[in-house]
Amino acid sequence: MENNFRSFASDNNSGVHPQIMEALLKANSGHAIGYGDDDITRKAIQKIETHFGSSAQAFFVFNGTGANVTGLLAATHSFSAIICSETAHINVDECGAPEKFTTCKLLTVPTNDGKLTPSLIKKHLHGFGSEHHAQPRVISISQTTELGTLYKPNEIRDLASIAHENGMLLHMDGARLSNAAAALGLSFKEFTADCGVDFVSFGGTKNGLMYGEAVVFLNTSLAENFKFIRKQGMQLASKMRYISAQFLEFLSNDLYLQNANHANSMAKILEAKVKSIPEITITQPVEANGIFAIVPQRAIVELQKYYFFYVWDEDKSEVRWMTSFDTTLEDIDGFINQLKQALK
Amino acid sequence: MENNFRSFASDNNSGVHPQIMEALLKANSGHAIGYGDDDITRKAIQKIETHFGSSAQAFFVFNGTGANVTGLLAATHSFSAIICSETAHINVDECGAPEKFTTCKLLTVPTNDGKLTPSLIKKHLHGFGSEHHAQPRVISISQTTELGTLYKPNEIRDLASIAHENGMLLHMDGARLSNAAAALGLSFKEFTADCGVDFVSFGGTKNGLMYGEAVVFLNTSLAENFKFIRKQGMQLASKMRYISAQFLEFLSNDLYLQNANHANSMAKILEAKVKSIPEITITQPVEANGIFAIVPQRAIVELQKYYFFYVWDEDKSEVRWMTSFDTTLEDIDGFINQLKQALK
Amino acid sequence: MENNFRSFASDNNSGVHPQIMEALLKANSGHAIGYGDDDITRKAIQKIETHFGSSAQAFFVFNGTGANVTGLLAATHSFSAIICSETAHINVDECGAPEKFTTCKLLTVPTNDGKLTPSLIKKHLHGFGSEHHAQPRVISISQTTELGTLYKPNEIRDLASIAHENGMLLHMDGARLSNAAAALGLSFKEFTADCGVDFVSFGGTKNGLMYGEAVVFLNTSLAENFKFIRKQGMQLASKMRYISAQFLEFLSNDLYLQNANHANSMAKILEAKVKSIPEITITQPVEANGIFAIVPQRAIVELQKYYFFYVWDEDKSEVRWMTSFDTTLEDIDGFINQLKQALK
Amino acid sequence: MENNFRSFASDNNSGVHPQIMEALLKANSGHAIGYGDDDITRKAIQKIETHFGSSAQAFFVFNGTGANVTGLLAATHSFSAIICSETAHINVDECGAPEKFTTCKLLTVPTNDGKLTPSLIKKHLHGFGSEHHAQPRVISISQTTELGTLYKPNEIRDLASIAHENGMLLHMDGARLSNAAAALGLSFKEFTADCGVDFVSFGGTKNGLMYGEAVVFLNTSLAENFKFIRKQGMQLASKMRYISAQFLEFLSNDLYLQNANHANSMAKILEAKVKSIPEITITQPVEANGIFAIVPQRAIVELQKYYFFYVWDEDKSEVRWMTSFDTTLEDIDGFINQLKQALK
Repeated sequence: MENNFRSFASDNNSGVHPQIMEALLKANSGHAIGYGDDDITRKAIQKIETHFGSSAQAFFVFNGTGANVTGLLAATHSFSAIICSETAHINVDECGAPEKFTTCKLLTVPTNDGKLTPSLIKKHLHGFGSEHHAQPRVISISQTTELGTLYKPNEIRDLASIAHENGMLLHMDGARLSNAAAALGLSFKEFTADCGVDFVSFGGTKNGLMYGEAVVFLNTSLAENFKFIRKQGMQLASKMRYISAQFLEFLSNDLYLQNANHANSMAKILEAKVKSIPEITITQPVEANGIFAIVPQRAIVELQKYYFFYVWDEDKSEVRWMTSFDTTLEDIDGFINQLKQALK
Repeated sequence: MENNFRSFASDNNSGVHPQIMEALLKANSGHAIGYGDDDITRKAIQKIETHFGSSAQAFFVFNGTGANVTGLLAATHSFSAIICSETAHINVDECGAPEKFTTCKLLTVPTNDGKLTPSLIKKHLHGFGSEHHAQPRVISISQTTELGTLYKPNEIRDLASIAHENGMLLHMDGARLSNAAAALGLSFKEFTADCGVDFVSFGGTKNGLMYGEAVVFLNTSLAENFKFIRKQGMQLASKMRYISAQFLEFLSNDLYLQNANHANSMAKILEAKVKSIPEITITQPVEANGIFAIVPQRAIVELQKYYFFYVWDEDKSEVRWMTSFDTTLEDIDGFINQLKQALK
Repeated sequence: MENNFRSFASDNNSGVHPQIMEALLKANSGHAIGYGDDDITRKAIQKIETHFGSSAQAFFVFNGTGANVTGLLAATHSFSAIICSETAHINVDECGAPEKFTTCKLLTVPTNDGKLTPSLIKKHLHGFGSEHHAQPRVISISQTTELGTLYKPNEIRDLASIAHENGMLLHMDGARLSNAAAALGLSFKEFTADCGVDFVSFGGTKNGLMYGEAVVFLNTSLAENFKFIRKQGMQLASKMRYISAQFLEFLSNDLYLQNANHANSMAKILEAKVKSIPEITITQPVEANGIFAIVPQRAIVELQKYYFFYVWDEDKSEVRWMTSFDTTLEDIDGFINQLKQALK
Repeated sequence: MENNFRSFASDNNSGVHPQIMEALLKANSGHAIGYGDDDITRKAIQKIETHFGSSAQAFFVFNGTGANVTGLLAATHSFSAIICSETAHINVDECGAPEKFTTCKLLTVPTNDGKLTPSLIKKHLHGFGSEHHAQPRVISISQTTELGTLYKPNEIRDLASIAHENGMLLHMDGARLSNAAAALGLSFKEFTADCGVDFVSFGGTKNGLMYGEAVVFLNTSLAENFKFIRKQGMQLASKMRYISAQFLEFLSNDLYLQNANHANSMAKILEAKVKSIPEITITQPVEANGIFAIVPQRAIVELQKYYFFYVWDEDKSEVRWMTSFDTTLEDIDGFINQLKQALK
């Protein structure tokens, strides 16, 4: 099945925002020194600093897995452990890339909503100094989470505190960081640097970019050797200006925010319409652009004839629907209609 | 120094060919399933098969290091050894990425022209079956080489034979594979599959693409687990259609060939003009789009005020100049003029 | 505190059995070719085959972590996942060595008694074939478990079945395999090869050896490249005859069984005496040579002034006591007396 | 062929010195806390400090490859490069273990005598700070070398200087460190710590021990995380006291020196006798306990019917003969006689 219209499968099924396309065309003029030693890259990095605080050090990479994994290597030893939610992208959706590249142990925590808390991670905070055990070094959280939920600033601050008290670091997987900023009504700095986050995987691809993410170090001691790690991690783009141009546009005139606000509000509308259907139960608070719902099995099968989307939990008959920067009210109406048909 | 005109530093300093840009714009319509399960990707993969032979299995990745390193992992055990020229990109220009990802030993061979031969690699063909030694498994050659030279089909065939006789595989790093095809006047198939090459890193970025390369397995048993290796290697693009669209265009209507032919012929013209300057000695045969030359030290310093390029060998005062798909006769004249000034 | 008598801390706190010492002395005659190409090693390997079945292929390594980790590498790809109990030695006590050497993901399962079951591991048996997920490849069980419990042959057979049905392999961490053989009253073959186990880490150090373990492949396709993996894993002893001589003695005249039977029966006696103390609750069935018990916190502190042992779970005030091949009735009486003192 | 007498194949074909055996028997009394937290280990570590200087920090491991590889990990980043002789054990005889565990690139240098010099390594001292290149971090030398030659203190000092000037470290693979001490007539400290060596792999197995080596950090900042690296590297012995007891004896009453002096002097005697045979050419200065010689091919074949030894270089018909702590004058006479027979 190849659909000809916009689905709710994932925010990476959408295309590239027209302004980003325009920026790519504009960047395509003349020669530029490769590997990031060009003006557009310099400007884009400065722009990131204006959003994350002047001490931020940013490095562009190709994709989200690349951002997570190279950032984590910069923060760990081979014998370190990384604490994350059982549902974390680094745990379930990266084919073991974190283990391959960092050789660290992932210590996972079951959660209801994808969110870590100090009390949930407590059971992994032991064995410090004992050579028999992998040494806890990083707490990794996703903002927004893989379940569409959101950390509040004070929740982030609490996790940063417990991390730092134990000589550990706080990492934020921000594949959907813009959606979080939009939902929280805060600048990136206010819920990263200001809350004690040490480094961020800052994503653009799920919010209108073609490709490209950034590793943003707020704890800049971590950045010391990162250029080598990025290159060795196969994440150094030769024609870097084309990633940089996208980020420069993304972060100018609040394009990131406009896109994320749109996706988030479409999710709210979709949520409202889904809620009115009695056969369906929404399973997570809709705090950004993802909706999780239990849908009768036969309806899933029927609906998937028309729309591609992911079954999140086969056993529970739970599905995931994502809205995007380009989702329209018509898309939602069409989807709801088809869903109602499927439920008949 | 930021130059405003086209330099001869590297073929990755050039931009994106207008037809490729057009293809990206065209691909930017509606939603598409992520990670390569889309029509454009299917077509692009088919197109590669028409160029490399029907048994070819192609996988898109982000960049050349990614192509080399993930391909090599698919072909090796942790205790394997990879034989390559001392000047090979995988040896000197990837910050140890092959060692990091494959954990193989690189066995290097000094050469005059960047080209391996059966007799040159012979000294590394021993220790088979002895647990004390890393086991030779892959011969890796670059086509064109990092020194701008070219393997002839019979030379490739000889290396494939010696590889296969020893239970080994032949890898071709084809960051500039199109320039080789143009220079040889052969199809890709004729100097890869037909010569016994087992897998190829097929590059586009240095010949007019924005980003994206392909790992092409001709020995398809190597492809069995490659999708996992690519993902774990952080090389799986979520919005894959944008890489695919570039390759589809690149391989249609001989765009790859047109670009490569242009770059190669510009190199010939540059070579001719450089040859007429008595203070300069060209050090390698100009067989594709690279020129290596010994230039008086003071002239290098002077010329680099106007043009960015790489000093290849400080001790010998040897430089590298690359032509590109967009090099013009005016670019060459301007460069030669400045070079002559610098020599005064 | 350095104790001058036998404690119940661990079966690796005991020394070397006198017959093993005698065997080492006997082996110390003249020269022998290094790295295992000697007569004693050949005989020891044959002896293992008589115990595990004629298809067994055995390789000696230095220690238990070495056996587990090199064996697992032989059975996995870089992107594989290994399912094990949350309490497995490979998960908690090897400082991340499995992740470092195999780069696999460990999928852990909470258990009450350290034992996996088909229903417990079911939640990890998904994602096969999807490139986003680490691919489940090995089920690893410990026999006896880290909690002193024992798998019955039919339980092992069930796990082998579910492994093989899913294209996976069954690994047995047998650091205390002799204790299991003694407790089950079965030959090694009867509860490994005959039950479908694919490979075993066969330990001796915890049952009277000085050093040395064996990786025993019952599924011999896994052994193909193991000699390289062992060497690359820093586990190939140059003076191998001294490991071999220990195993040869260990497996002759049932020394392994005699030692294990003794340790197991001492555990039963200790268990009986502990049970008679009302303040103490034994938390796991005593099926081999380990006893787990909840002891009042103040008594632990007091007792540890005289005896070194490990607190297993601080929160529950649960301790672990191990008996050994050299534990005496007097040791037990002395310990119980001190324990009773401590409880006052 | 299994020979019943002492050969000249390798110093690891010899057995265990009787005093070492005695020490093992003596250590085998009662229980001791595992993993090195015991009195014998504490004493052995102190003893090492008396030989290498009070700032030395020593850690016992199982074997030479383990010592080299874990020590190198402690000194490097994943993207570091290690400079060594082409003939270095870490390069040719460890099946790629250094690459596997450290993921560093080995930069090899052809030499005549196995010895690095500042001028020989110069060609690898570039690319510092450039993300495209693996970063030179360690110079690794073998003392004595794999070719039986010896570094003089001033030669070591010069290499330490060039290392430190470039922000690098000097590693000494001392599998035969005692033979070097004996040959130089110096304490270990005088040609390691006093010459600027940063860390040493200190071997015992080739000089009369059963198993066990030590990583000795003289630059103690490198030791910070070593206990985790050793455990993760599968090199932490549970019954550590038995390694420690060997080293304690080895370093007491100059046993190490007595053994090494004997082996070295036997090599001198063997050299003298070989020199008197006109058909044979000695190819390296005999500075410790190894002799390298070109022997007619047919004589090699004939002699190997009676004595196992290694052909070092097939093409040159060059063999290696090693003497050991237990080599006797009768062994030499028997060997020389057989050699003369073989030459007939």
